[in-house]
Amino acid sequence: MARLTANSYGKCDVRLTKVVRTGATHTLWELTASIILTGDFARIYTNGDNSPCIPTDTMKNTVYVLAKKNEFGSPEEFGVILASHFVGRFDHVESDEVSIAQKIWTRIPAGGRPHDHSFSSAGSGRRTCVVKKTRRGPPRVSGGLAGLEVIKTTGSGFSGFLKDEYTTLQETTDRILATSIDAAWDFLPSASPDYNAVFETAFRVIPETFATHESLSVQQTIYAMGEALLARVPDIATVSFTLPNQHRLPVNLSPFRLASENEIFVATSEPFGLIKGTVARE
Amino acid sequence: MARLTANSYGKCDVRLTKVVRTGATHTLWELTASIILTGDFARIYTNGDNSPCIPTDTMKNTVYVLAKKNEFGSPEEFGVILASHFVGRFDHVESDEVSIAQKIWTRIPAGGRPHDHSFSSAGSGRRTCVVKKTRRGPPRVSGGLAGLEVIKTTGSGFSGFLKDEYTTLQETTDRILATSIDAAWDFLPSASPDYNAVFETAFRVIPETFATHESLSVQQTIYAMGEALLARVPDIATVSFTLPNQHRLPVNLSPFRLASENEIFVATSEPFGLIKGTVARE
Amino acid sequence: MARLTANSYGKCDVRLTKVVRTGATHTLWELTASIILTGDFARIYTNGDNSPCIPTDTMKNTVYVLAKKNEFGSPEEFGVILASHFVGRFDHVESDEVSIAQKIWTRIPAGGRPHDHSFSSAGSGRRTCVVKKTRRGPPRVSGGLAGLEVIKTTGSGFSGFLKDEYTTLQETTDRILATSIDAAWDFLPSASPDYNAVFETAFRVIPETFATHESLSVQQTIYAMGEALLARVPDIATVSFTLPNQHRLPVNLSPFRLASENEIFVATSEPFGLIKGTVARE
Amino acid sequence: MARLTANSYGKCDVRLTKVVRTGATHTLWELTASIILTGDFARIYTNGDNSPCIPTDTMKNTVYVLAKKNEFGSPEEFGVILASHFVGRFDHVESDEVSIAQKIWTRIPAGGRPHDHSFSSAGSGRRTCVVKKTRRGPPRVSGGLAGLEVIKTTGSGFSGFLKDEYTTLQETTDRILATSIDAAWDFLPSASPDYNAVFETAFRVIPETFATHESLSVQQTIYAMGEALLARVPDIATVSFTLPNQHRLPVNLSPFRLASENEIFVATSEPFGLIKGTVARE
Repeated sequence: MARLTANSYGKCDVRLTKVVRTGATHTLWELTASIILTGDFARIYTNGDNSPCIPTDTMKNTVYVLAKKNEFGSPEEFGVILASHFVGRFDHVESDEVSIAQKIWTRIPAGGRPHDHSFSSAGSGRRTCVVKKTRRGPPRVSGGLAGLEVIKTTGSGFSGFLKDEYTTLQETTDRILATSIDAAWDFLPSASPDYNAVFETAFRVIPETFATHESLSVQQTIYAMGEALLARVPDIATVSFTLPNQHRLPVNLSPFRLASENEIFVATSEPFGLIKGTVARE
Repeated sequence: MARLTANSYGKCDVRLTKVVRTGATHTLWELTASIILTGDFARIYTNGDNSPCIPTDTMKNTVYVLAKKNEFGSPEEFGVILASHFVGRFDHVESDEVSIAQKIWTRIPAGGRPHDHSFSSAGSGRRTCVVKKTRRGPPRVSGGLAGLEVIKTTGSGFSGFLKDEYTTLQETTDRILATSIDAAWDFLPSASPDYNAVFETAFRVIPETFATHESLSVQQTIYAMGEALLARVPDIATVSFTLPNQHRLPVNLSPFRLASENEIFVATSEPFGLIKGTVARE
Repeated sequence: MARLTANSYGKCDVRLTKVVRTGATHTLWELTASIILTGDFARIYTNGDNSPCIPTDTMKNTVYVLAKKNEFGSPEEFGVILASHFVGRFDHVESDEVSIAQKIWTRIPAGGRPHDHSFSSAGSGRRTCVVKKTRRGPPRVSGGLAGLEVIKTTGSGFSGFLKDEYTTLQETTDRILATSIDAAWDFLPSASPDYNAVFETAFRVIPETFATHESLSVQQTIYAMGEALLARVPDIATVSFTLPNQHRLPVNLSPFRLASENEIFVATSEPFGLIKGTVARE
Repeated sequence: MARLTANSYGKCDVRLTKVVRTGATHTLWELTASIILTGDFARIYTNGDNSPCIPTDTMKNTVYVLAKKNEFGSPEEFGVILASHFVGRFDHVESDEVSIAQKIWTRIPAGGRPHDHSFSSAGSGRRTCVVKKTRRGPPRVSGGLAGLEVIKTTGSGFSGFLKDEYTTLQETTDRILATSIDAAWDFLPSASPDYNAVFETAFRVIPETFATHESLSVQQTIYAMGEALLARVPDIATVSFTLPNQHRLPVNLSPFRLASENEIFVATSEPFGLIKGTVARE
């Protein structure tokens, strides 16, 4: 009467710290990896037959072992190593998906120069990537960033929108725009991208476009950031953005006989707008 | 050179409290709703033309207005009202998706009976639903629950699993199993389900099955819960589960010359296993 | 030029799961313990002399070892065991403070009765205790609860308050009152309290008083809960409450030509009122 | 039988955004303020007499009105304005305490220079201050920082510590040290500090000292940071630190026949060490 129609499993939030020592200068990787497998696992569910079950504890160990055995220069590279491992080793694994988030540390300035082995947190953004691997074909790699908090105090408006009897929002040509940018980009099949160069460009171009774009809506800002990224990184095929609109609402000061001069605002946690868009190279 | 290939937007985490007074006895709804629209919105992104843009602030207002204007007896019913509104009113909206989470309050016992208008939080679980509506066809409704925390101190094992040189996990026929259950169910096209009766059955049968099932794996427990739910609720077509394995690891007491007798454990936040499965009626 | 004028250290958030088997019926303890020591530790800071330093890792181990070696029937009892250990064993420890939070699990109903070994989360509240021990004198024990979420849809008002030119709040004799109760109680020096009986009474009387009290303010509700607890538990000397006012604001429906009938509200995360009060037995 | 022996109340997490326009260049303040009052409020609790009750909603309004009416150049200055308001205006307020956390935004680089009105999140640290004001005497101001995440991959050890039979921690002369620094400093009564200059010095000197100090323990690092700050800022009287030890544990690779070379670690969320110390000018 019952049938298992879909299944997958894996290990989430494996926290890896790797220190690479090049003389006195250390490189620090702090990655959080999640691995999800699909494959011929149905009888684990239906028959209690664990023989095809790769324990998620083994997946965790594998992250540490592969991090030890392999040099890598980017989260994407490590993601490819991890994703290739499971489908490469186990015939009954049909596909796996590895998601990695990298904490971005920056060298602490000390004595006028970046310190060799001491770091502080660099802003709110994380570097992210997802690698999907099936039994056939090369791994599909996407790079990204998440949680990059930005705000602009002018150069943003929202007017000319559709109104009905439930609309109370006032039109404005000058508002605060605040958000936390998530972006993910795919590469052209023909590309051999330098993942770090791509990330660094994106991490610079996306907030710079946010800063300089005269925004008529969050939607338009997304498109402008997408256009700018495609223009600057020829290897990128598509880029997808997800941006919450983290409202800063003007405080009504009229009960206190004070003019509202676009000066005093309240930030609200919820509700929030959520705007998504994908921009592709034509 | 650039082209918008996908887009959607909406309002998230609209918090609605509705009090329904039936004489002295009050019914309390605390819902958090999110609305995502797709449709003919591209020129907002590409041209800065906001004329088709329904402000997310209007969506928020609409939640409150429709909650005021309509009686409803379940989150699913309110979800249908909301989801039907946007595609019904705006020709350029092609589909919308409304997700609702309900905080579950229980009446405080006072003077030997449940209180008329005072409530306390009832466990960790939330009631959830998702309603999707396109321009054509009826709304598609799924019910669910989320964050239902359960634990069993025996009646769970994990052995006979695949081993390779990266496996260090010991087999066990007696372990603690702890998880936080997320489940979502779809209905048969022919069904006219009583959403509340379905939820109450699921909210009872799922933890009861967790309790009594002799578990060989989280996967097998998922299948057992799915089978039990399908057996008890004829209107359900499929049910999907997502269960983190919230590990309780035996503490190694041998350095202290104490026997480990499956008695002392440490709970870990991460990493965690994540097991998914969908069970369908045949 | 510099001098160390205060110091303390310890281990926080040690997560302990203990299963006690009485035949087929299991008792489950899930405690999170924190230990803070004060004593003759200054030279660790000033001289890098670690000889008096009890590693926090040892404190963690001690939690597990003492949980294994000792039977206990309440978090307070285990707190006394833990707090007595450090000042009892190490002459240079002057005092320690042990804080424990217990996750409250309830037996899952199965087959018409509470299950032997399977549990679900019971509401939002946690049981808490703090035990302070100095070299001299008995341990000072306080019991408590935290995070007990309650809400009432009437039987609460707020009027007659002080007004100045910055006041815009409307008086009301009928509002929603929602909060998350934290309470901590101390015992009379002469008492030999049954910690579990006290907790169970508090966990019942406090929400019951919240439910039935006709509230003129959060402050008055605090006092009423304190009075009720003191009246019901002779061993308690004082009880302190901390209550956030988790506002439910009436939604202004007048732009939509709908009457506001104390029916539709929005819950806000912040800002929130915070009200504290201590009630003592005279 | 019952008596109110302590009470206080106020408003927490009032989120203020203030934009100051100096020509094209905007200054952005994002502050979260909490206000707690003590005074002659007992009859609110005991008698339901709200006549002395300043609504917390009025406190919230006051934050926005005073932010509008006053120019300020630091959170400390605004804290003094706020704290002075309540005891200055209401005779029955005996003291108030204002706590402020400032989100640190940094100008986005655009076209080779910091942007006029667009900002991104600058690291994990927040700027904090607490201002306490009683009816008599000047406000007492402390500055601080919170959540400043730092990590060093060498230059840290922990050895020579006290051992007992519950100790399993290995001594090490080379470990990772990771923490999130909270610091708060008080000023000499004679000082007229430049709050911004003090903060900027602290925000530079504290992580720099963390970076360059050869640490024998978290405790010793705290003392070193305190000494350095006192040496660099003559106006500071005392500085208190609270540092979690955010462990990075070496992964045991011996089951995989791999040497552990201080290279592969796991970060754990809990338990964590917590180390506190106050360093005063002699």
